[in-house]
Amino acid sequence: MSDLELNCPLPLQYDRIVMAHGGGGRLMQQLLDNLIQPAFGNPLLNQKHDSAVFEVNGSRLAFTTDSYVVKPLFFPGGDIGKLAVCGTLNDLAMSGAKPLYLTCALIIEEGFPIADLERIVQSMQHTAEAAGVLIVTGDTKVVDKGKGDGVFINTAGIGLIDAGIESNPGRIKGGDSILLNGDLGRHGIAVMLEREGLNFAHEIESDCADLSGLVGELLAAGIEIHCMRDLTRGGLAAALIELAATARQHIEIREASLPVDSNVKSACEILGFDPVYIANEGAFILFVPEEQTEQALSVLRGHPLGRQASRIGQVTGPHPRGTVTLENVMGVSRVLDLFSGEQLPRIC
Amino acid sequence: MSDLELNCPLPLQYDRIVMAHGGGGRLMQQLLDNLIQPAFGNPLLNQKHDSAVFEVNGSRLAFTTDSYVVKPLFFPGGDIGKLAVCGTLNDLAMSGAKPLYLTCALIIEEGFPIADLERIVQSMQHTAEAAGVLIVTGDTKVVDKGKGDGVFINTAGIGLIDAGIESNPGRIKGGDSILLNGDLGRHGIAVMLEREGLNFAHEIESDCADLSGLVGELLAAGIEIHCMRDLTRGGLAAALIELAATARQHIEIREASLPVDSNVKSACEILGFDPVYIANEGAFILFVPEEQTEQALSVLRGHPLGRQASRIGQVTGPHPRGTVTLENVMGVSRVLDLFSGEQLPRIC
Repeated sequence: MSDLELNCPLPLQYDRIVMAHGGGGRLMQQLLDNLIQPAFGNPLLNQKHDSAVFEVNGSRLAFTTDSYVVKPLFFPGGDIGKLAVCGTLNDLAMSGAKPLYLTCALIIEEGFPIADLERIVQSMQHTAEAAGVLIVTGDTKVVDKGKGDGVFINTAGIGLIDAGIESNPGRIKGGDSILLNGDLGRHGIAVMLEREGLNFAHEIESDCADLSGLVGELLAAGIEIHCMRDLTRGGLAAALIELAATARQHIEIREASLPVDSNVKSACEILGFDPVYIANEGAFILFVPEEQTEQALSVLRGHPLGRQASRIGQVTGPHPRGTVTLENVMGVSRVLDLFSGEQLPRIC
Repeated sequence: MSDLELNCPLPLQYDRIVMAHGGGGRLMQQLLDNLIQPAFGNPLLNQKHDSAVFEVNGSRLAFTTDSYVVKPLFFPGGDIGKLAVCGTLNDLAMSGAKPLYLTCALIIEEGFPIADLERIVQSMQHTAEAAGVLIVTGDTKVVDKGKGDGVFINTAGIGLIDAGIESNPGRIKGGDSILLNGDLGRHGIAVMLEREGLNFAHEIESDCADLSGLVGELLAAGIEIHCMRDLTRGGLAAALIELAATARQHIEIREASLPVDSNVKSACEILGFDPVYIANEGAFILFVPEEQTEQALSVLRGHPLGRQASRIGQVTGPHPRGTVTLENVMGVSRVLDLFSGEQLPRIC
């Protein structure tokens, strides 16, 4: 029985799929723990990391996949193509891998404008090229009008992990500093506002970005990264809760240390969202030994994607199930839990 | 300019996606040549093979992806889960690779029965296990009711190619024998009959199968395979036409040598289909030196998936664009061409 099963002992509550099964919260965790993990269960899948890591003839490779169903397809700061490339590059980078090659599989709805498709694949290529990776193989399927939603994209990626680098939840330990490269909530809020046609005085742009260059700089600087995780579906909260459970450690975060853009903060207050649960596409946390905190922050702040980097908390030590507490500005701590419903559907 | 562009000089005829853009015929080729290839173009993608092949630290790896949108999800002889695993295993095998690891990314429509999802993932695991490969990482997305169609599955796969093995279109040359492991058209017809609710006296089962074991036996027997291709969308005709164009060779096929099950033949006659254009999911062709024909046929016929193996034609020599002629039972030859419309949508 995995750590996450201990945290989510409930059986599946539904006999049909609901939107929240894809939302990064408790229902999605239940679906994975009750259905997907038992079916496919194997030591590599059970790593519960952004990529599977294995050796082939002595080379350590990372292998990952994600499908993208974001709605709308174009949003401030990005589009589904940029997202599909960045998301998979980031999953590889979080395993400490240098991304090498990507695939691109398209499921296109009949009637979709070819000009939009062209814009999307060019955005993919532009993003891949900037990251120095090649899109080497792909697939194109078409489904009947009304059986898809414009275009869905799957990207898979493989990367190479250099000797001595090991970023995975099992290495998180008491005393680790937890660093965050940027601010929280921009991607989820930008997509949601665009979808709902809500206009705020200041446009909020998605933080969608390729983190592999920044991670490469951290590794090149000799930072001993114990674990990294990008803060996608379920946001910072889901990432911390899953990592704490897998590592069986207690994590403490200070709310005052979490950077949130003032426009994002306003939008969250008006709409009733909590930025720690909102998805990001260019934000990640890293766990480093306490003594490397300053050096790591200095590398982060020297990169355009890490200017706002901060230390947001620490790992205090072993805990039988793994927990995360958030200390608010008043000094009051609460235990963070996965949300059970659907907060923002289809943001990636 | 690639060979295929020479064969398909027409610009895109539509400004919106039509079903035939995913059908494996001329319109799909135009979409790939006019939009996808120019955007992503690189030497690996331009291999125009079932997998991309590259070296990582001296190991030759094959990397492939496919999305599956078959309708219905369950059909005689298989289901979308079995198809999604076999299809990707076969793409790896066609490059001469031994499959190692697969991914599984699900796009599920809100309201989809969880019992059906369970049946599908168990079918995937069963198929992967039988092939000796692990499903090591995955992704689950949910889309709103009416924005998907039950479930779409993407699988990506990586495999390892042993030294000395090179199966790709560039190796096809005059004098090669062309062998086929089985009969034609069962998958496409089985799926179509099930979807349309047409009942024939004898049920036709899809040939959906993992070919990697059979390919492994051919390679282990020392057969010098110049190229392999599985006969999916567009059937035997599309595979031959694309390979002839890429290799710039002339290919001759004898219709009388093509095995077609009598029930499939009846269904094709009644419905107006030509079995050479119908998709298969367990049929492949291989190009071998003339002198290895008998040895290869003997290995093929010793395997359950190759009992009906036959020599269906040969490569006669260079041709400026590459062509395929089919000699019918009367001894009359015609040039095979890609079909331009949509023959059977959503069969994989």
